[in-house]
Amino acid sequence: MSLPTAVDCIVSAKWILPIVPAGKIFRDCSLVIHQGRIEAIHPTEGVLQEYSPRQHIELPQHVLMPGLVNAHTHAAMSLLRGYADDLPLMRWLKDHIWPTEKRWVDADFVHDGTQLALAEMLRTGTTCFSDMYFFPETTAAAVHQAGLRAQITFPVLDFPTNWAKDADDYIHKGLMLQDDYRSHPRIRIGFGPHADYTLSDAPLKRIAMLAEELQAPVQIHLHETAADVLQAVDATGMRPIERLLDLGVLSPLTQCVHMTQLSDRDIDLLQQSGASVIHCPESNLKLASGICPVQRLLDQGINVALGTDGAASNNDLDMFGEITTAALLGKVAARDATALPAWQMLHMATLGGAKVLGLDAQIGSLEAGKAADVIAVRLDDLDMAPLYELASQLVYNNRRNRVTHAWVQGKILLQDSQFTTLNIADLRNRARHWQDQIKPELPL
Amino acid sequence: MSLPTAVDCIVSAKWILPIVPAGKIFRDCSLVIHQGRIEAIHPTEGVLQEYSPRQHIELPQHVLMPGLVNAHTHAAMSLLRGYADDLPLMRWLKDHIWPTEKRWVDADFVHDGTQLALAEMLRTGTTCFSDMYFFPETTAAAVHQAGLRAQITFPVLDFPTNWAKDADDYIHKGLMLQDDYRSHPRIRIGFGPHADYTLSDAPLKRIAMLAEELQAPVQIHLHETAADVLQAVDATGMRPIERLLDLGVLSPLTQCVHMTQLSDRDIDLLQQSGASVIHCPESNLKLASGICPVQRLLDQGINVALGTDGAASNNDLDMFGEITTAALLGKVAARDATALPAWQMLHMATLGGAKVLGLDAQIGSLEAGKAADVIAVRLDDLDMAPLYELASQLVYNNRRNRVTHAWVQGKILLQDSQFTTLNIADLRNRARHWQDQIKPELPL
Repeated sequence: MSLPTAVDCIVSAKWILPIVPAGKIFRDCSLVIHQGRIEAIHPTEGVLQEYSPRQHIELPQHVLMPGLVNAHTHAAMSLLRGYADDLPLMRWLKDHIWPTEKRWVDADFVHDGTQLALAEMLRTGTTCFSDMYFFPETTAAAVHQAGLRAQITFPVLDFPTNWAKDADDYIHKGLMLQDDYRSHPRIRIGFGPHADYTLSDAPLKRIAMLAEELQAPVQIHLHETAADVLQAVDATGMRPIERLLDLGVLSPLTQCVHMTQLSDRDIDLLQQSGASVIHCPESNLKLASGICPVQRLLDQGINVALGTDGAASNNDLDMFGEITTAALLGKVAARDATALPAWQMLHMATLGGAKVLGLDAQIGSLEAGKAADVIAVRLDDLDMAPLYELASQLVYNNRRNRVTHAWVQGKILLQDSQFTTLNIADLRNRARHWQDQIKPELPL
Repeated sequence: MSLPTAVDCIVSAKWILPIVPAGKIFRDCSLVIHQGRIEAIHPTEGVLQEYSPRQHIELPQHVLMPGLVNAHTHAAMSLLRGYADDLPLMRWLKDHIWPTEKRWVDADFVHDGTQLALAEMLRTGTTCFSDMYFFPETTAAAVHQAGLRAQITFPVLDFPTNWAKDADDYIHKGLMLQDDYRSHPRIRIGFGPHADYTLSDAPLKRIAMLAEELQAPVQIHLHETAADVLQAVDATGMRPIERLLDLGVLSPLTQCVHMTQLSDRDIDLLQQSGASVIHCPESNLKLASGICPVQRLLDQGINVALGTDGAASNNDLDMFGEITTAALLGKVAARDATALPAWQMLHMATLGGAKVLGLDAQIGSLEAGKAADVIAVRLDDLDMAPLYELASQLVYNNRRNRVTHAWVQGKILLQDSQFTTLNIADLRNRARHWQDQIKPELPL
């Protein structure tokens, strides 16, 4: 009889939901992790005869599944959570968010805000996210230190902000960052042209060319509101998506965020281009932007991921909550209660998101050889009983935050609800510091 | 100097959000409770010179607010949570829910399912709810024992179910129940004609007359889907709301649930009748029923409450989650991000709900003389930082379940997240029992 194979870690759970094969649920199985990758899924009975782990974690009331992919956020904006609500997009941006950012956003703001966001995301099951914010080098450093996985898109705009002064400056800084991180195992730098309405043709064309050359992702806010689209048609004679196509920006590398205002022709152009969509239902609802026709996009073979957007227009970064909202909203949008069923939503928030970010070879499902980006969700609380259908319960009844463990690249970042790489007391103090700076409480 | 007044309980908190006065937040204040009622709100500094409590509870990280009012649910259906998802209303009812109920629903089912629901509701901040389900005498007994407040509407339908055989039988049983509970301080019995499409004219007229006589509430599913409305027009030549008006069923005692399919004329009729609306956004989305135009109804002076519906079409009974969904959805429905702002949503889930149930003299706000139906929400977790606007945080960032305490009529039912009147181990066992009966797990 052969000796057991030495491995780093075995996690034994009540269920394993791998996403691939689709619809599969393993019972009483163990996930074998070695050197940051998934080695195998093995029945718990007998696993210790096959493998000898340095660490064995037993989670008898939990399901293991791939870590969630939050495909669009502005992490540091966690510091502006609840700062300005109940306002439409343009007023919110122009009268509140942009002036406040101009006043306060620097590398410290981004460092502290990003860490706060990383804590919330990890605690709620997100192991990989895409960011778009100023001082992306600070964001990248925070992600590197905390251990999560990220696509970090550096913003590009025509106008100056605290980070850069014009489109060329944004791109220059971004390219340096991209070069610094070109071999990083968990962080990928991409282009973040803010929106069609914040950029002229020349930088957009330049981004298209550079992205193609570097095979780097491009993420852009697009067709977010009816006003955006009208304004574009007024200014250019073209809908934003047509203009992007014209400039060469719409390609399989392009991730279009929001997309609530889509004509049939828009959807056809999208499909032909190979670009994907990132659906942010709670942000779209909160800003009264509209409803993205997700089932239609999926029916036409367009890849769709989910995102929370920033905490200032959500107002949480909880992907299980976003999954529920997307599932519910998608049914009424399609006028069809069979639209966006539970399994499809779990796929969208894991492998679907990975695919849109170009990371589906590495993450998004629990399969041998893939990176061990995993979460454990505890399902024995009373409000989870009775439990008939696991997928349904995770999609329609999981906004309580039952995530207890999270691993990225096989490293445990959340263990029994405690962070291993983030200091809560410190985060708490810094959040308080910013709260007092930005909006000191009025004396009573 | 006079001696302090002896009182039953003082709860000292960081904030008190009374709902009345509108927009008011007390800091570092104490709620004084005596003989089941709110005696006063007093600054914590000096409160023990004024009052001498038998019990003093200090909640330095919490906000106290009125308990939430879940104005429409089917409590015992917690046992069917996740049983059948991703299906449209009629197929869901006819092919799955009604056959399963026929097979399993008896007094034991209702007792166990109701207790499970009471636990979830209490834990998530609901202190008063309205129910519509079979064996309402069992529901009432469970509510009486557990200590919550409820409006219990006995179902009335034309066809037989496990509880009664025809409309007269439903009404007869219901009237006996109504008589039993006529003086109960926390439980009020009302009529629950299921829907226009499940009842003929005669019983509807009878209900209208009896409700008027007894001044008892009437709750009915109405204009839930486009198909309902079309079917009514086909069968009767009238829209359901017109038919109800015609039969005398639409009055200030009437609570119309769902109302997603409303013409301008429907809304006018509603307004003139004085009837109110119970908005169940998550159910309406999940079953692809439609979107109730809540801001429009409020603009026309119609009272609107919030409800979760049953756990089989939500799939949780969490009112803070429902508040968030209603706020977000209402903005896109009104195409206006200023619609249904945070304070309005908090009102709708407390005093607004109380008003629709005819209980606004007793509950819905923390004012001297009202019943002490109160919850405490803990706000010091990291994801609640920074905290700029309390109302915003409770509406847009509170789906984590931070409720730690709940009182009904001054009696503490949830203390530090522990139930005082419900036995968790017992509930867990019984949920397991039903799970095994209804859908035993298939062998692997």
